[in-house]
Amino acid sequence: MNGLFITFEGGEGSGKSSILKSAEQKLAARGYDVLATREPGGIEIAEKIRSIILDPEHTAMDARTEALLYAAARRQHLTEIVRPALESGKMVLCDRFVDSSLAYQGFARSIGMDEVLAINQFAIQDLMPDRTLFFDINPEKGLDRIARNENRERNRLDLEHIRFHEQVYAAYWKLVAEHPDRIHVIDADRPFADVEADTIQDVVSYVNHMLREEEGK
Amino acid sequence: MNGLFITFEGGEGSGKSSILKSAEQKLAARGYDVLATREPGGIEIAEKIRSIILDPEHTAMDARTEALLYAAARRQHLTEIVRPALESGKMVLCDRFVDSSLAYQGFARSIGMDEVLAINQFAIQDLMPDRTLFFDINPEKGLDRIARNENRERNRLDLEHIRFHEQVYAAYWKLVAEHPDRIHVIDADRPFADVEADTIQDVVSYVNHMLREEEGK
Repeated sequence: MNGLFITFEGGEGSGKSSILKSAEQKLAARGYDVLATREPGGIEIAEKIRSIILDPEHTAMDARTEALLYAAARRQHLTEIVRPALESGKMVLCDRFVDSSLAYQGFARSIGMDEVLAINQFAIQDLMPDRTLFFDINPEKGLDRIARNENRERNRLDLEHIRFHEQVYAAYWKLVAEHPDRIHVIDADRPFADVEADTIQDVVSYVNHMLREEEGK
Repeated sequence: MNGLFITFEGGEGSGKSSILKSAEQKLAARGYDVLATREPGGIEIAEKIRSIILDPEHTAMDARTEALLYAAARRQHLTEIVRPALESGKMVLCDRFVDSSLAYQGFARSIGMDEVLAINQFAIQDLMPDRTLFFDINPEKGLDRIARNENRERNRLDLEHIRFHEQVYAAYWKLVAEHPDRIHVIDADRPFADVEADTIQDVVSYVNHMLREEEGK
C-alpha cells in the first residue's frame, strides 16, 4: 500500500471536523491526492448499521452491541473506501477511527479499552493509521463552544454529561502516552487559522519525513 | 444464575430445528420451565441487524462485517432474552449459538475460528452454553433431505455449495474434539422419533447429573 492514512481525533467542540474539511482543500491545492472521509461515509451497509445505532427508539441497546455495530460499520467503510484509496496511493484523512471507539466505548462507557481494541483489531486487520492528530481542548471549553454555536443554554449540559466527556478526554491522553510516535497533539484552544496551520504543517512534515525515510532505504 | 443453557447445533438438513420445537413441548410436559429461542428471536434491534445481513442487495458485504453483525445480534438477543430467562431459572434451548459462527464464519468463510471466537467472547462475556447437542448428519445427506423437502432438483446444489457444507461439518467435529465435556453428539441420520428420544434423554440425564452435583456440594 502506497497511500498515507491520517486520522483526526478529539472530543466534542475540538473543531477537528471543520479543520479536516479545510485542510483537505489546502493539501489538495498543494498537489496532494487527498480523500477526506468519515464513517459511515455514504456506504450503504455502513449507513444502515449507523442508523440502527442512532435510532432514538433503541433504548434497549446494550453498550457491547453498540461497540460491535461501530466495529462492523468501520470494517465495511474500510473495505469500500479507505483501503481502495490507500491502494491507489491517496492520502486519506479520516474523521475519527479506532481511537474514538477506545475512548468513548472502551473507557467512558466502561467496557474496557483492551476489549474494544480486540474487536477493532478483528475489524481493521492491522490497518492502523500512519499518523493521528489529537485536537486537544479542555472538555468544558469544547462543550461551551458547541453550546455557543448552537445558541444553547450552557446549563443544559448537566454534570453527568460533562463527566462523560472528561472521561473521554482522559482516555485520549492515555492513548497519546501509549502511542507517542503515532499520535501528535495539536493545541485546539486557539483561533481556527492557527490550528489549521499547525495541522497542515504536521501533515506536510510527516509526509516529507516518510519520503526521506524511503529514499534512505 | 440458576437456569440451564442448552444449544442445538448442526449443518443444513440435520433436523435440529424441528427436534428443538418438539423437545420444548415434551420437556415442558414433563414439568421443566423451558424457553425455546433462536437469534434474532423477535428482538427489534437484533432483527434489524439480521435484516442487514440477509438483504440480497448487500453484495458488497465483507465476511468480517458479517461476523461482527452476527456477534452484535447475538449480544442483544442474549441481553434481552437468554440472560433474563436464565436468571429466572429457566431451561433455555437455543437454536444455534457461538459454535455456528465458529463453523460457518470462522472455518468455512476462512476468517479463522480463533478470531471469530474473540469477537464472540466480547459479545457473550463467558456466557457459554452449559450443554451443546451436535446433530450429526453427513452434509450430502443433509442437503439431500432439504432438496427433497422443498421438491428441488438435487443438481441445483453445485459442487462449491457441497464443499462449503463439508467445511462446516469438519469444523463442528473439530469443536466436538476440543470440547468433549460440553458438546454431545447425536446421530441425526435416523427417524425423527429416535433422534428426538435421544435428545430428550440427553437433556434429562444432564439435568439430573447437574442436580446430583449440586446436592453433593
